[in-house]
Amino acid sequence: MNARSAEEFEAHLRSIGEKRYHHLHPFNERMHAGELSEAEFRGWVRNRFYYQLNLPKKDAFILTKLPGRDDRRRWITRIIDHDGRTGDEGGIEKWVRLGGAVGLSREELFDVDTVLPGVRFAVDAYVDFCREKPWLEAVASALTELFAPGLLSRRIIDVEKHYPWIAPAGLEYFRARLVQQPKDIAHLLELVIENAGTKQQQDACARALEFKCDVLWSLLDAVELAYRKSS
Amino acid sequence: MNARSAEEFEAHLRSIGEKRYHHLHPFNERMHAGELSEAEFRGWVRNRFYYQLNLPKKDAFILTKLPGRDDRRRWITRIIDHDGRTGDEGGIEKWVRLGGAVGLSREELFDVDTVLPGVRFAVDAYVDFCREKPWLEAVASALTELFAPGLLSRRIIDVEKHYPWIAPAGLEYFRARLVQQPKDIAHLLELVIENAGTKQQQDACARALEFKCDVLWSLLDAVELAYRKSS
Repeated sequence: MNARSAEEFEAHLRSIGEKRYHHLHPFNERMHAGELSEAEFRGWVRNRFYYQLNLPKKDAFILTKLPGRDDRRRWITRIIDHDGRTGDEGGIEKWVRLGGAVGLSREELFDVDTVLPGVRFAVDAYVDFCREKPWLEAVASALTELFAPGLLSRRIIDVEKHYPWIAPAGLEYFRARLVQQPKDIAHLLELVIENAGTKQQQDACARALEFKCDVLWSLLDAVELAYRKSS
Repeated sequence: MNARSAEEFEAHLRSIGEKRYHHLHPFNERMHAGELSEAEFRGWVRNRFYYQLNLPKKDAFILTKLPGRDDRRRWITRIIDHDGRTGDEGGIEKWVRLGGAVGLSREELFDVDTVLPGVRFAVDAYVDFCREKPWLEAVASALTELFAPGLLSRRIIDVEKHYPWIAPAGLEYFRARLVQQPKDIAHLLELVIENAGTKQQQDACARALEFKCDVLWSLLDAVELAYRKSS
């Protein structure tokens, strides 16, 4: 079977996100419609923090296997964006501030033993995927980023509008990601499209994206079910 | 068995390096005495480059398992020191310049298929150690750095003195390491001494240092034997 052209391949990847990215998840739709209770919003922030905490680890696994220095130089900024550095608090700390804005203490957030099991299984599966798979597939699992800017920009508007009890400063994480993500997306597309030269590699990249859509979807499933039960 | 005090533990680690660090290796002693042929010096630069190339990978494995963000923030500078970033060429590129100064092209250096088998085995074993072992032992395997500044400062002087055919600009890698390494050593000692709380952990750290001394020693063994045979 012939490989898709670069344009066809990118269009195929985008079509996967349009069908399976978590912007379509009922819990996310309720968030944007202003229908989440305070407990539900807080539950999402708290459990999603486990995902945020693990991003530098999965990116460090990718760093161990990227083929060269130039790509490591570009990929390493993802870790720094989340961990921060002197004079730049970083994304994890910004998420802690979002936690503060919804009434969660730093201690509650870092107490990862209380993360919902379904969230833990999904996030750990993502880290394991990046540890075990060849670099191209590990990298391709980040392709959900293609669909993030649209979701993030709507989220900032909708959350400000519907949840006035959340201080706007709490949303700084999302604003920062809108600025950081374009460089990551450009590098990601370059790596995937230039290096998936065969139909087999393109299919493996598409499956990696589908897997990652499942991770994000499953995370929201777990949060939705946990807070539905308790309400 | 009781754990050693912090002072006793550090003294024990230092005593290991005094006996087993590669400053005592005959090939290194000949380098400092001005006794290496041009072919031998070039062989060392070329084969040691494989070690240099793998440092960011082993540090990325450590990054995947360090317990927290603050330590990752400090450890990540090791990767950047070697890979470089915009406006800072980094240690790998400086070693390429050392290669140029001894008559090796960039292509020869990056052609890792021609690395001596003994060098490959030793370096791969080091990366595997950092991949497989708990973070404390992986970190402790870097403890050979305690002994590097003394060796590096002598190396700059002795190589300039004995090998006038090597342009001094080629030694920039060693000068840069003298500046970068103190921050790494401070973090390393802090991590190892504060976290090896039991006698068992202290012994595991000491074994990690011995293992790493063996890696460096074995690398020089391979170079020494290869060029003795061909001369």
